[in-house]
Amino acid sequence: MIETPYLLFLGDAPDQLAAKVAQGIRDWRPEHALGQLRMEGCKADVGLPDMTLEEARAAGAKTLVIGVANRGGVISPAWKKVLVAALEEGFDLASGLHNLLRDEPDLVAATRAHGRQLHDVRVPTVAYPIANGRKRSGKRCLAVGTDCSVGKMYTALAMDRAAKARGMKSSFRATGQTGILITGEGVPLDAVVADFMAGAVEWLTPDNDDDHWDMIEGQGSLFHISFSGVTMALIHGGQPDALILAHEPTRTHLRGLPEHPVPSLEALRDLALPLARIANPRAQVVGISVNTAAMGEDEALSYLESVERRMGLPTVDPFRQGAERLVEALEAI
Amino acid sequence: MIETPYLLFLGDAPDQLAAKVAQGIRDWRPEHALGQLRMEGCKADVGLPDMTLEEARAAGAKTLVIGVANRGGVISPAWKKVLVAALEEGFDLASGLHNLLRDEPDLVAATRAHGRQLHDVRVPTVAYPIANGRKRSGKRCLAVGTDCSVGKMYTALAMDRAAKARGMKSSFRATGQTGILITGEGVPLDAVVADFMAGAVEWLTPDNDDDHWDMIEGQGSLFHISFSGVTMALIHGGQPDALILAHEPTRTHLRGLPEHPVPSLEALRDLALPLARIANPRAQVVGISVNTAAMGEDEALSYLESVERRMGLPTVDPFRQGAERLVEALEAI
Repeated sequence: MIETPYLLFLGDAPDQLAAKVAQGIRDWRPEHALGQLRMEGCKADVGLPDMTLEEARAAGAKTLVIGVANRGGVISPAWKKVLVAALEEGFDLASGLHNLLRDEPDLVAATRAHGRQLHDVRVPTVAYPIANGRKRSGKRCLAVGTDCSVGKMYTALAMDRAAKARGMKSSFRATGQTGILITGEGVPLDAVVADFMAGAVEWLTPDNDDDHWDMIEGQGSLFHISFSGVTMALIHGGQPDALILAHEPTRTHLRGLPEHPVPSLEALRDLALPLARIANPRAQVVGISVNTAAMGEDEALSYLESVERRMGLPTVDPFRQGAERLVEALEAI
Repeated sequence: MIETPYLLFLGDAPDQLAAKVAQGIRDWRPEHALGQLRMEGCKADVGLPDMTLEEARAAGAKTLVIGVANRGGVISPAWKKVLVAALEEGFDLASGLHNLLRDEPDLVAATRAHGRQLHDVRVPTVAYPIANGRKRSGKRCLAVGTDCSVGKMYTALAMDRAAKARGMKSSFRATGQTGILITGEGVPLDAVVADFMAGAVEWLTPDNDDDHWDMIEGQGSLFHISFSGVTMALIHGGQPDALILAHEPTRTHLRGLPEHPVPSLEALRDLALPLARIANPRAQVVGISVNTAAMGEDEALSYLESVERRMGLPTVDPFRQGAERLVEALEAI
């Protein structure tokens, strides 16, 4: 568990996109984000007050989160000075970079000297159990995609927000690096050893109040041969009551697999639902989340309408329209 | 790759079952197994000449394989003396035990002193790639089960043997500890990190002659929620041309999951085939392998016949009948 609130480190981000982890924290957990720290030449701005390390500490910030992805995952010498100064100032550090904080001797030395902690959220820190498949109390929702990177995390976060706004009990359950940095906890599922994947998902979504929903962050796709085993573990470990189908309609082939066409929403439904019912016989497909970012407003709305008619399920782009209709579908279960 | 031939260490095995890894090597790769080494009180015998370390070295043995599973996976002090002596004598050591050879300081010291190698086959030693899903040359066969531990490894080994006996090109591809010790190489799939599972299977079953068959060792089951992600990675990384359905008809529930009934062969077929066709559109279910060890001869034969009629597929118990009919079904593809 990463201590909050955060100061978000944007470093020398070359553009706004490079700071998308910081933007995610800012968008989804504004209460965790006190300010941003930008270095000379930083081209990103997530709309938070610029703070020095001293100002952020005085305001109560506990952890400096590396909210920027740099080329090659390297922790640059220019960053190092700031990170070491942060440890000296009393901050913990958290990072989702490929290159680990713990592999940098100067950061390790400063962490020890000042009694701080380094959080590399790509590395599992828990000895997860093997899944036992027992029915747990509480309810769970999982988005499954026709492909990777179609908006499953965004969908779960938007549903969590919409559920809370309706007064429902809900927890977003992070299974990837960005999700973990946003919430401060979760399971880096793609780094878990095969035998313990489903058990890690069970661990992440334990018994809960009967009217509580876990909004589980999806990973991969059943149709994406590189990562389908991870998706399978989410479906069986998560034992979802509700599935959301997630789709990006302008893609011509699966991400990174040029020979593999994107399947239809019908094919996804017909594959995912029988698999989900192995773990939870009452699993249902309750709605569809479409990422229409590559479409104009009119085109997007007419596409969403046509899918809704075709599939007979509430169909929204949570970014354009919010996730209220998906959450209403959960309430109807 | 573990150097062959082997001397099989049976230690102080309390019964025959405890030596089943040694028995597997003896049964499936007799050309790798020069002899057995039994300690005082050993109750197992795999039918090989008893040899001292010196005799086995003189006969050409390269590796002492721990062919016995002991309670709790501990490497006992009684074993230690023999293992250290083997390293001094010039043997490498290979083990599939949970407790690792490499975690025993005295074994590590002796290994260094004598320039030998320790093989802990539970631990991946290759940096496997992420799967790319490209169609590979050659053909592949995978057994998928209604449950875990229904005879998938045995089926693949029996098919490999039957194929070679017919003059077909065939390789058994090990994905578990026992299979790796039998063949001297493979991928310990259940210990591979999630993101690289399917890539590890691609690595294990590379391009080959058009008329070559990889007989891939199956793992887990699509219906077994603890391990279904591993099975999924085998189906998508292995891109099998042929699936064999594997079943144990007397089981009342899935192994370790008392609330989960064993599915029908029809349910397995209908779930596995569409998943396999994502990676290989020409995938077919070609036969059924039934483990009838718990049945009498008459009961077994009549059960096999009834399944064959019901499913319309060659149905055999490879232990009772050999795997020739399954291999004929591959040839027909």
